[in-house]
Amino acid sequence: MTTTTPALAMPSAGGRFQATTVERCDLRPDDVRIDIKFAGICHSDIHTVRDEWGKATYPLTPGHEIAGVVSEVGPEVTKFKVGDRVGVGCMVDSCGECSQCRAGHENFCEKKTVFTYGDTDVDGTMTQGGYSQQVVVTERFVVRIPDGLDLDVAAPLLCAGITLYTPLKRWLEHAGSDAKVAIVGMGGLGHMGVKLASAMGADVTVLSQGLSKEEDGRRFGARDYRATSDATTFEELRGTFDVIISTISADLDLSQYLSLLKPFGTFVTVGLPPNPQQLPFGALINGDKTIAGSNIGGIALTQEMLDFCAEHGITAEIETIGADEVDEAYDRVVKSDVRYRFVIDTATIQPAS
Amino acid sequence: MTTTTPALAMPSAGGRFQATTVERCDLRPDDVRIDIKFAGICHSDIHTVRDEWGKATYPLTPGHEIAGVVSEVGPEVTKFKVGDRVGVGCMVDSCGECSQCRAGHENFCEKKTVFTYGDTDVDGTMTQGGYSQQVVVTERFVVRIPDGLDLDVAAPLLCAGITLYTPLKRWLEHAGSDAKVAIVGMGGLGHMGVKLASAMGADVTVLSQGLSKEEDGRRFGARDYRATSDATTFEELRGTFDVIISTISADLDLSQYLSLLKPFGTFVTVGLPPNPQQLPFGALINGDKTIAGSNIGGIALTQEMLDFCAEHGITAEIETIGADEVDEAYDRVVKSDVRYRFVIDTATIQPAS
Repeated sequence: MTTTTPALAMPSAGGRFQATTVERCDLRPDDVRIDIKFAGICHSDIHTVRDEWGKATYPLTPGHEIAGVVSEVGPEVTKFKVGDRVGVGCMVDSCGECSQCRAGHENFCEKKTVFTYGDTDVDGTMTQGGYSQQVVVTERFVVRIPDGLDLDVAAPLLCAGITLYTPLKRWLEHAGSDAKVAIVGMGGLGHMGVKLASAMGADVTVLSQGLSKEEDGRRFGARDYRATSDATTFEELRGTFDVIISTISADLDLSQYLSLLKPFGTFVTVGLPPNPQQLPFGALINGDKTIAGSNIGGIALTQEMLDFCAEHGITAEIETIGADEVDEAYDRVVKSDVRYRFVIDTATIQPAS
Repeated sequence: MTTTTPALAMPSAGGRFQATTVERCDLRPDDVRIDIKFAGICHSDIHTVRDEWGKATYPLTPGHEIAGVVSEVGPEVTKFKVGDRVGVGCMVDSCGECSQCRAGHENFCEKKTVFTYGDTDVDGTMTQGGYSQQVVVTERFVVRIPDGLDLDVAAPLLCAGITLYTPLKRWLEHAGSDAKVAIVGMGGLGHMGVKLASAMGADVTVLSQGLSKEEDGRRFGARDYRATSDATTFEELRGTFDVIISTISADLDLSQYLSLLKPFGTFVTVGLPPNPQQLPFGALINGDKTIAGSNIGGIALTQEMLDFCAEHGITAEIETIGADEVDEAYDRVVKSDVRYRFVIDTATIQPAS
């Protein structure tokens, strides 16, 4: 009834990862079995396994930046065949019938989006993620990784890439192709934002705490790079941007950031600070400005993003690690000590026999 | 060099209005002299003359909902002739050359928008508003009141009307013509929102503290009317609206209001609470939602709004008052005791000789 596959699992909040196994269900007619080659480490993984978001069930195998190769397909699968290079992101199922699903927004399914790990699947079991060697997913939630993209540097596109692509596409459409865009934060998300926005034709500025990553930022396509720790940044860039995308999860001074927008400009957050932020409505009203949130993106848009990345030669900047380095990598992500995404080589997962 | 005209002026913060006179400049080539017939009372007038926004200079004649008749035109005026029925709103000048002005957003002029009262005019004098019998304004900031609209019920359109028309037009465009819209607050602004949104084809719900104005709301076009004081309102209407427009100036629970939006929905504030509001970013990210501000609108859009109102028979609901009733009217506005806008018959202003 199931297949056993090596996996990393967190036994409890505050523990260390253990090499173990998880069960994958037999193929339903529309399922694809994927041999996972690489799994990116997303900050969400850390929040979840450390129970900082408060709903974790253990043991837990995280990972929703999955890149691999199709090893088996169900009898009704039409999109994929054995050997195809594919990816799975944050979701593995949804109702497929509600207005949101029909509009391609499976991430906001009115019935229930099933997330890739730590969520209740349609069969009642708990989903287990990509820090493993195999996963079974309905073909509707599998995307094709174009030939031009290596699997290791493509893996982070499945979450970090789509997280930035979605708001850039939505809000640059309003601002025009010569838009001035600021990306706040130069981490795993931010560096994808710089690459994607630049490839879309925007004039990109990075707003980072300091200037230590300036050379990288300019190499990724930014035309300007400023330190938010320098108060003159906010004076000099007043009224400059059409779109600001914030990737940071710390408290921020919304008034300051809104002052950097042109009239009708938009501040989009993909970062989720733990506390509510202070919003003086006057800072929005003066200039008809907007604050928006953005949360990953639908499956069709994810495929579009991968195709866009292949076309423009965009990949994530990664450090590849083995299974025994994940705990340390987590600590380094929390300290922002990674350029720019850790990716686990899942072949290194070796459970004790 | 100037013409003296009867006016109401506030001598100092906390005082009472006095019938007096103000000076109006001689016509420059592109100026229009307007015999003011009616001036609406906007809540901004009250904040300003009571120095609650902290920048008032006295004596001060407020009023930026001005309806009247052209009595004289400068030699280069082309849009208007003597006898034309016209209006003036919140602005009387701007540079006309910056990108915002050229795009029709004179309200966000990059050099300086000159507001109708209490602002420094291009000649260095302080602007004085519409609680008076005459005003001189460049024709670029004068709009035509269509024949179908009486001057008294048209006056409030110049601020309250455009304040609601602008965000409805901007955000309904995204949501489609069958959008579900909530108007929060049923005052001078809110009642215009109900009428305008309904005329635009939206399915309108009023969210008001209580149900005392429900009959009016439905007469103005609302299909539903709910009390925000009733907690079940927020449960029952969860995920209902494409657009919510808040006209209220009190603190509000943004999380609650954002929960009423569909994915990709927008909460627009035209009300300006004195305190910053608490914004949990998760309430935006979950559903790619948006919070926007909106501040009046440009001159071309103001004319479009007046034409739209004439075409759809939309006017403000007013109580017409004399010059000696303005102080009392202010107290009633603060207590929300007006259905729905006070309009001063400026012929009643009689300064002591």
